[in-house]
Amino acid sequence: MRVLGVDPGLTRCGVGVVDSLPGRRAQLVSVGVIRSDPAASVDLRLLTVARELDEWLDAHVPDVVAVERVFAQHNVGTVMGTAQVAGLAMVAAARRGVPVALHTPSEVKAAVTGSGRAGKEQVQRMVQSLLGLAEPPRPADAADALALAITHLWRPAGALQGGERNELTPAQRAWAAAEQAARRAPARAPARAPRRASR
Amino acid sequence: MRVLGVDPGLTRCGVGVVDSLPGRRAQLVSVGVIRSDPAASVDLRLLTVARELDEWLDAHVPDVVAVERVFAQHNVGTVMGTAQVAGLAMVAAARRGVPVALHTPSEVKAAVTGSGRAGKEQVQRMVQSLLGLAEPPRPADAADALALAITHLWRPAGALQGGERNELTPAQRAWAAAEQAARRAPARAPARAPRRASR
Repeated sequence: MRVLGVDPGLTRCGVGVVDSLPGRRAQLVSVGVIRSDPAASVDLRLLTVARELDEWLDAHVPDVVAVERVFAQHNVGTVMGTAQVAGLAMVAAARRGVPVALHTPSEVKAAVTGSGRAGKEQVQRMVQSLLGLAEPPRPADAADALALAITHLWRPAGALQGGERNELTPAQRAWAAAEQAARRAPARAPARAPRRASR
Repeated sequence: MRVLGVDPGLTRCGVGVVDSLPGRRAQLVSVGVIRSDPAASVDLRLLTVARELDEWLDAHVPDVVAVERVFAQHNVGTVMGTAQVAGLAMVAAARRGVPVALHTPSEVKAAVTGSGRAGKEQVQRMVQSLLGLAEPPRPADAADALALAITHLWRPAGALQGGERNELTPAQRAWAAAEQAARRAPARAPARAPRRASR
């Protein structure tokens, strides 16, 4: 299973792709940060992020997109942009028939460090260790995106989605899996297919 | 000038298209409400709204999209979905090179009723009167979308955008206008072109 983790943000949006390996191990595929210019208008900033999220999805064809669940009560100054970028990630996944999972920051910290109140540095160190990286992923947004992806891989059975309102029905899951399988099959043959060949 | 007003919401998103006429008059082109099923997962709900917003933009080819500015401190229970839908409307416009304007609820009420603290019914009655409609537009979301569009048509000179962070630069405006002109020209010839012919 391949998971794209998205730590949403308008100025910096962390993105990380992780594959599951046998024996509860995970492997880094790609990690990065999508940035938008704080001096630009919000609509153009959101467009920049939306286009790059599209590119990440088309380049890596994840089985699931795991997005950090955004709460209204946190960081009033930036929460609107964060919520909007989370929404763009969800729509980008849904357009491609890729299921979306939401995980809270506490769930992510607990999954990778054992404590729901771990600090940023502890998350970075654990992500480094879990993925066998030479250095901790930086900035923190990149590490958080990888931590989200790992959290999703290691979620308890039955917890595909982070909350009751986001549970997929069996029909939705089957549909998504079938569409995913059909979409991935032809893209696997060429070693380096054009970016949008799988759509 | 043609304005598409968007009153964002995940369960009900008001959309209204208004054309300016000479002498500070305005004409209704189309109005409606985009709905998504509260029982569905958030990603699929957002996808439904995104697709319908795309259809409104492609069907009516507005010169500007006016979106209600969402504040983090209001309606904590629904603000995330509202913010996300506002973000989708902004990205849908930006993808087409259509400028986006944000107006606060107070600006809208003041523009159409003369009072920034007017009630929903007063806004509905004024929208009915200003557009010469036989009945007030219902539900309130539809009336609010039309009020947003009217507010934008009647904005004070220089106030293209609702806030300092959303001001378009002269270059952005010129680019958007040129792209808009190029895009609309071929679509004008047929009386009823296919919906996506103008893309």
